[in-house]
Amino acid sequence: MRTKDKMRESEFIDWLFSQSDFDPAAVPVGPGDDMAVVMCGSEELLITTDQALDGVHFSLARCGPEAAGRKAMARSLSDVAAMAAIPFGAVAAVALPKGFQQPDAEAMYRGLRSISDPFECPIVGGDVAVWDKPLAISVTIFARPTGPGPVLRSGAKPGDAICVTGSFGGAWASQRHLEFMPRIREARRLGERCELHAMIDVSDGLAADLGHLARASGVGAEILAANVPIHPDVDARDEAGRLRAALGDGEDYELLFALPAEQAEQLVRDQPLTVPIRRIGTVISGEALRLIGPDGRGEPLQVPGWEHET
Amino acid sequence: MRTKDKMRESEFIDWLFSQSDFDPAAVPVGPGDDMAVVMCGSEELLITTDQALDGVHFSLARCGPEAAGRKAMARSLSDVAAMAAIPFGAVAAVALPKGFQQPDAEAMYRGLRSISDPFECPIVGGDVAVWDKPLAISVTIFARPTGPGPVLRSGAKPGDAICVTGSFGGAWASQRHLEFMPRIREARRLGERCELHAMIDVSDGLAADLGHLARASGVGAEILAANVPIHPDVDARDEAGRLRAALGDGEDYELLFALPAEQAEQLVRDQPLTVPIRRIGTVISGEALRLIGPDGRGEPLQVPGWEHET
Repeated sequence: MRTKDKMRESEFIDWLFSQSDFDPAAVPVGPGDDMAVVMCGSEELLITTDQALDGVHFSLARCGPEAAGRKAMARSLSDVAAMAAIPFGAVAAVALPKGFQQPDAEAMYRGLRSISDPFECPIVGGDVAVWDKPLAISVTIFARPTGPGPVLRSGAKPGDAICVTGSFGGAWASQRHLEFMPRIREARRLGERCELHAMIDVSDGLAADLGHLARASGVGAEILAANVPIHPDVDARDEAGRLRAALGDGEDYELLFALPAEQAEQLVRDQPLTVPIRRIGTVISGEALRLIGPDGRGEPLQVPGWEHET
Repeated sequence: MRTKDKMRESEFIDWLFSQSDFDPAAVPVGPGDDMAVVMCGSEELLITTDQALDGVHFSLARCGPEAAGRKAMARSLSDVAAMAAIPFGAVAAVALPKGFQQPDAEAMYRGLRSISDPFECPIVGGDVAVWDKPLAISVTIFARPTGPGPVLRSGAKPGDAICVTGSFGGAWASQRHLEFMPRIREARRLGERCELHAMIDVSDGLAADLGHLARASGVGAEILAANVPIHPDVDARDEAGRLRAALGDGEDYELLFALPAEQAEQLVRDQPLTVPIRRIGTVISGEALRLIGPDGRGEPLQVPGWEHET
């Protein structure tokens, strides 16, 4: 079910994108990247909007309103990380279920603030309505690029190394998806050290988001199965199941990025972040996504939910 | 029910506002006005977010997806009008009900575009999710101020005239709330001609939004009952019922504004807009909101849903 929804979203966004005809002088980056870029006078303004829905992105009954608010804000801030940008404000639209009490609303707001405050991203406005349906939170964040400009999904080049922060899989089952810290600082540090050709945050799943990045860049990729960092939360017994979870589960909110191979080598050697950086593969020309097994044999990388797309 | 919700929203926004401590150099206007104002480099950036929920702001079964999308965009653009600002982009977060078909989603999107295109406000990004709950649309709009700067709710001064565009009441029952055109051009024209001390768009109701404006400005107001323009959609039989509808129904999305009395006189004489402008009252010192009857006797202005606030 979740897989199918992801596919529909991706299809719809593609369709929406194709409908739009932007003046590139006013809208340098439209829908289809982690954030849009619009010109605000002479300044580049980055914008993202994301929703967190009870029953889809969290279970209110299970996690409570504070964790729900936290996740809603963290999801949007993760998009800011993906652009290596600096957030400077947020607005939130909240549909509260009838029967939600003031303390619940306060807890939800505390959750939002618990993750926006550390990034000095004030919540400058909001819209609150009450309905007899589940909690829905939409968070819009605006950000400015760092020195080298926003890092898009579309700049990966054949020969680039593909790297990731952290490890993957099991985030939903373990509730880690409620507790992740958006990789904003890490992304900026990477941007200061390297030429980041392309970057995305992993929400749909490592394979799916690699697919998004590759498609946006017009390239393919080879991933070394043995190099994919598998999170301890993954509880599959056999190696194949563990790899499948790491590639497919999603909700990891780690960074996936492409950069010149020699810079990646240095980066992996230096490990300048508090989270491990690992090279998992290489950008290739064409559009194939391939998974290379320990025996050196390749097979098509399975992207969950993509079966019906071709 | 709707009245109670409005009150809760207002309470919550107040509470939210009191929690925040903004650096005025970075956030000149925080929550509590029609739009927040944040500094984007040296530019003032105006932001609003608003949601349109099935069963609260529209009935999908009754109006269909295109009208729902249209209203979602129009609601947010009406906030831009209230600041006499110029929109330059929007993002939308949409929770689609399961079973929503691609043609429904396209119709919803057409509805959004039908009202953003006339104002040259491109939809630069979006987030789409699917859930087994009703349609929820959040639209965030960013705008820039016109020459004199954003018009806030808080600048009304004793002695100012209180004016409105258009007429009031019956918008929900007649479905007019699905078809209104945000008063963006009218607001700008007003801003070019007059010193707009304070302005708000009337969504909660004429009395309630007058209350918001007065409270934000720290003033009171006297409204002349005979001058309140009543919309032909109001179907109450007696004069008292018609006035009550005009003051209380809401969803009119007209402009309510305060300006120097002599400028209002000129404005009402010239009628420079295609929609009628009418003076309905006067800003007074203190905090009382009073309704003056045809016999010259005053009574407290009843603000629906506010009974429990004091």
